[in-house]
Amino acid sequence: MGGDFGPRATVSASVRALQAHPHLHLCLFGQQPALDDALAHLSRNDASILSRLTLHHCPDVIAEDAKPSSALRGSKDSSLSRMLDFVATGDAHAAVSAGNTGALMALSRRALGTVAGIPRPAISTAVPTRGKGRCYLLDLGANVEADAERLVDFALMGEVMARCIDGLEKPRIALLNVGIEGTKGTASVREADARLRDFPHLDYRGFIEGDGIYSGLVDVVVCDGFVGNAVLKASEGLAKMLIQRVQQTFEAHWSSRLVGLLARPALRRLRGELNPVRYNGASLLGLNGIVVKSHGGADATGFAHAISRAIKEVSEDLPSQLAHELGERRPVIASVACGRRDSGMDARCRTNE
Amino acid sequence: MGGDFGPRATVSASVRALQAHPHLHLCLFGQQPALDDALAHLSRNDASILSRLTLHHCPDVIAEDAKPSSALRGSKDSSLSRMLDFVATGDAHAAVSAGNTGALMALSRRALGTVAGIPRPAISTAVPTRGKGRCYLLDLGANVEADAERLVDFALMGEVMARCIDGLEKPRIALLNVGIEGTKGTASVREADARLRDFPHLDYRGFIEGDGIYSGLVDVVVCDGFVGNAVLKASEGLAKMLIQRVQQTFEAHWSSRLVGLLARPALRRLRGELNPVRYNGASLLGLNGIVVKSHGGADATGFAHAISRAIKEVSEDLPSQLAHELGERRPVIASVACGRRDSGMDARCRTNE
Repeated sequence: MGGDFGPRATVSASVRALQAHPHLHLCLFGQQPALDDALAHLSRNDASILSRLTLHHCPDVIAEDAKPSSALRGSKDSSLSRMLDFVATGDAHAAVSAGNTGALMALSRRALGTVAGIPRPAISTAVPTRGKGRCYLLDLGANVEADAERLVDFALMGEVMARCIDGLEKPRIALLNVGIEGTKGTASVREADARLRDFPHLDYRGFIEGDGIYSGLVDVVVCDGFVGNAVLKASEGLAKMLIQRVQQTFEAHWSSRLVGLLARPALRRLRGELNPVRYNGASLLGLNGIVVKSHGGADATGFAHAISRAIKEVSEDLPSQLAHELGERRPVIASVACGRRDSGMDARCRTNE
Repeated sequence: MGGDFGPRATVSASVRALQAHPHLHLCLFGQQPALDDALAHLSRNDASILSRLTLHHCPDVIAEDAKPSSALRGSKDSSLSRMLDFVATGDAHAAVSAGNTGALMALSRRALGTVAGIPRPAISTAVPTRGKGRCYLLDLGANVEADAERLVDFALMGEVMARCIDGLEKPRIALLNVGIEGTKGTASVREADARLRDFPHLDYRGFIEGDGIYSGLVDVVVCDGFVGNAVLKASEGLAKMLIQRVQQTFEAHWSSRLVGLLARPALRRLRGELNPVRYNGASLLGLNGIVVKSHGGADATGFAHAISRAIKEVSEDLPSQLAHELGERRPVIASVACGRRDSGMDARCRTNE
């Protein structure tokens, strides 16, 4: 039910994902009329696909502007809650949603718990870098303040993500700071820097400044959620503005219609490459389960990417990997790893809202 | 002596500024051989210009990686120190430097003091926005942590800047946050939000997310120096990457050399428009004097922009405006406004390093 394009995008993306992954099963959680309407647009050719798609009618929807606290107090029959319950009970292996991020985070924590005593998950996504690479940035807003210990957790989780999901042998990790000298920055950042040097298995590269995120020189950049959120959203805003200016420059200055016609396909490719800044699909890292947040502005193609990310995390059993990595480094206080290792491409992923 | 291009860029920029501003006098502070070398490249036609250019030989240079503390303990005969002394004694109206930012900040505070009891200046620059506007962002790194009171100071100073320098009648002010709801963000940000609502003369628009910086909907965005620094540098890194991709897209996909030739002028224009992200020239706001930091990567054109900004700040007597605005809002603890109101285009601006 969430996202700028609502069920039309999520349902259409679900069908694409089912086509791309022959062993995938998807459960859609939402209001039946909206789901039916979105499904009505699919052709009959999709019958084989539809057999792997289950609809779960949920009477309630959590509003985009609802506070996490009211989501926690609110209906158990919202599409978000029902989807997460399905993961909690083991009926599905992962959840994907384009809905309210704060509510998704709060309900996910309640429904799934965290691994290795992590007090609060972090949100992470990858951005494109120079040299056609990608860089994970975390946290993106779940932890608006983060002490040194949390920053170290983020570094360890980001390392697991880049290694297990992207297959990097030794991901290069850096801490975001206002300078690269050891004397710069806040006390938390300097303490985290000192602590990270004590992990010999980490390829920790020290401090990096903001421009380093896009440099292609590191694979994971760690910061608190306030900074990460501001940086990611500013990047999105800037990318949109620059794309608009690219168009305007060509429209204003190109001397002939012929050249305009020739330029158009190149511009289209360019827009596709630049927008969105993020590869769609932000992972809620540290949960005892897999939850992927699709960007609210993502279309069906974007949402399908988020589903693919969830499938990949299921096939690599990301929560167990995180539990293992963090459990070795920090005391286990609360919950334990879910240990689901049964699945791969036949994962039942749940697509919510 | 500072910046990626050294004295060649600063001296060449100085000559351009002297050409553009017939009543401007410039004093160059640096090592005589380097200044002579840079001046040797100027043609004889510039004799009338050179009469308004004074060289001040300084034996020492503060290294780009020197800590502020060592700059404070170091030589009084560095180009930075000598330049700032010249402003402190009233021999010049403003200082412009492409050197070490931390050292410039520390030496400026010592040499000039601050207005209206401001404990520490903020660094601010404008970024381009949609609709061909601009938006001031502050702080950019001088205050890695900022409580509510400091954030309010930044808002008041940004307002003065946009009103006095850019001539906006009622600049729109916003606080950067991870969401626009009042419950979001850190305690400092929420308290600053509450306080800013008590300034009836401010056009305060509440919270804004990162993408709002480039939206054209506000003129001043306030945040702590850690966030501002990360956002600005990430934006610069992203812009560089996108420009590279624009070029690659055309190089890879354009089907004929003819089209490549036609596209080249448009791409050149585009690069000029997009790079740098910032309008060059970051102001050290809150000092009892005018100091403008030119971006280390700026060429002669960029450095000339920074000189122009200093001239504008002199002609509007920015320190007095800030002292007046902040003095009315907060108790005066330390220094007072400089009150230099004598100048305009005949300002003697000092170009350092």
